[in-house]
Amino acid sequence: LNKDIVIGMDIGGTVVRLGAFTCAGEPVEMREAPIEAARGPQFGLERIASLVQSVIEKLHISNFGTGTGVNIHSKDGGNLVGIGVGCTGPLDLIRGTINNPYTLPTWEDVPIVDFLVDRFGVPVSLENDADAAALGEYWQGAGRDVQRLCAVTVGTGIGTAYILHGKIVRGNGGWHPEGGHMIIDPSGPKCYCGGSGCWESLSSGSAIARVARELVQAQPDKAKTLLDLNAGDFSQITAKSVAQAARQGDSLASEVIDRAAEYFSLGIINIIMMLFPDVIVLSGGVMESFDLFKPTLEKAIRRHEVMLPANQVEILPASLGYHAGVYGAAFLMVNQ
Amino acid sequence: LNKDIVIGMDIGGTVVRLGAFTCAGEPVEMREAPIEAARGPQFGLERIASLVQSVIEKLHISNFGTGTGVNIHSKDGGNLVGIGVGCTGPLDLIRGTINNPYTLPTWEDVPIVDFLVDRFGVPVSLENDADAAALGEYWQGAGRDVQRLCAVTVGTGIGTAYILHGKIVRGNGGWHPEGGHMIIDPSGPKCYCGGSGCWESLSSGSAIARVARELVQAQPDKAKTLLDLNAGDFSQITAKSVAQAARQGDSLASEVIDRAAEYFSLGIINIIMMLFPDVIVLSGGVMESFDLFKPTLEKAIRRHEVMLPANQVEILPASLGYHAGVYGAAFLMVNQ
Repeated sequence: LNKDIVIGMDIGGTVVRLGAFTCAGEPVEMREAPIEAARGPQFGLERIASLVQSVIEKLHISNFGTGTGVNIHSKDGGNLVGIGVGCTGPLDLIRGTINNPYTLPTWEDVPIVDFLVDRFGVPVSLENDADAAALGEYWQGAGRDVQRLCAVTVGTGIGTAYILHGKIVRGNGGWHPEGGHMIIDPSGPKCYCGGSGCWESLSSGSAIARVARELVQAQPDKAKTLLDLNAGDFSQITAKSVAQAARQGDSLASEVIDRAAEYFSLGIINIIMMLFPDVIVLSGGVMESFDLFKPTLEKAIRRHEVMLPANQVEILPASLGYHAGVYGAAFLMVNQ
Repeated sequence: LNKDIVIGMDIGGTVVRLGAFTCAGEPVEMREAPIEAARGPQFGLERIASLVQSVIEKLHISNFGTGTGVNIHSKDGGNLVGIGVGCTGPLDLIRGTINNPYTLPTWEDVPIVDFLVDRFGVPVSLENDADAAALGEYWQGAGRDVQRLCAVTVGTGIGTAYILHGKIVRGNGGWHPEGGHMIIDPSGPKCYCGGSGCWESLSSGSAIARVARELVQAQPDKAKTLLDLNAGDFSQITAKSVAQAARQGDSLASEVIDRAAEYFSLGIINIIMMLFPDVIVLSGGVMESFDLFKPTLEKAIRRHEVMLPANQVEILPASLGYHAGVYGAAFLMVNQ
């Protein structure tokens, strides 16, 4: 293997994933390992370094360890162009540090960029994980080469990212915008974001589970399937089991999903009105049940075709799954 | 005068405004005339041409009329680099035509770009008027050189524009996004956009006037000042008179403004969450009473500082007034 290689890495709360790619986006190696964040950043950084090292050895990359930050092209092996890192934030993108004790316990002010530059002697770039995943879908996924790509992740929370002409659209001071916290219905529940009735509070996985738990407590007889799926314990209800029960005809679960789908659709309408992108790529656990949300969304879009041809916006499931962030992090080094 | 000149033009429903500028943004001539759209596009185009002609003569521009589209620098006079046109849409930006019989009666498929190129022999560029006004504020107004500038116009309706690194952020197919129609409260009034409770339906000038008329009819004794300002005729109430009455202590008018300010603030919060811009520039008739909206907005921003440092977003009144569009249209020819 005699070519330029980029490495992408996705550091999440539980797992670190790593991939080596050609600059054309062909994956050549994939690795993953538990991050075990609570064992401390030093442990975590060494684990990350050993994953990088194993890829470097496998690919006979020979510019490893020069410590100069300069790419040395080798005659026999691959040439490592650089390492892109996507990580769950908050991050300090300017200083290249991770500062996320919330989902990476004990990881405060961790200089991931300096660490990797020192260790491997190649350029290293750090990005928010949502932006990295969106870039991945732009590079090799559902939004390939799309001029205006909005990525929406609906899982425990709701995250958004916007890729314009292949570049991440950042906010003020480099901050990553938080489209999941736009207000959709001010009579909705209070959110930790400070607002009431934000998108996340109304149609994220946590919102679906919370509403289902409340309704089941009030009317357990309407949710027999849902309760059965959760061993009769309403406190165990997850968004996934609500979707499953809705598929099996549970009327309460269907009601919860329909309501979440209404709010989900309003958020998508707002993205269409604010940005009018070419493509909206959907990812995250809740979107694995996108088929249950689709009819409501399609109705909402038809309702909103007066100002803009809203049906021109393609709404697609993400295609890279858990690897979107790894692809996008690698693309950071291709698209400099 | 021996320098490069750019001409900017703003074609609105009632008036066409025109300005000549140096490429550094110094205004050298301003003109305006009624557009009298209903007399037909041929009449309107000739009126526009005569405004351009009068500026060209005044500035001794000598590359006029070459018909070649090539700039010829003259020894004695100014050199016309090009003409930028901002116009109330719908427009076809690719074909360079105006197709807006709604606010320019009879103006369907009017080839403004070809007409001006043929007549004056210089490059001509066409843009949506909201985008042009936002660009003007970026070039010489309240958002000068700001990296991420969102412009919000609150008048009869609500319009939005986003200028990223000095470039207009367009939507899918070149369409101008319609942030004024994002949903803020789904229990709100039905809008012509197809949605219910969009931003425009809740805090535009028309919304303020509509709510005030409804409330005054129900409780005329609570709105003595407001009725006096409108000669006792509630059907005459405008947003402007509501603001005026609120200033004079009319309790019903204050209630209407406070409610509109709540909704206005939610729209601004949504822009902050979706884009997190450096600056939001406010314009339009309703924003002439921005002081009445400001306390509510500041409270909303303080409430939403958990996810992002929302108070870092500067919120400023536009500084170019009715001329923002003329400036921005001219800038189209500077910033190619």
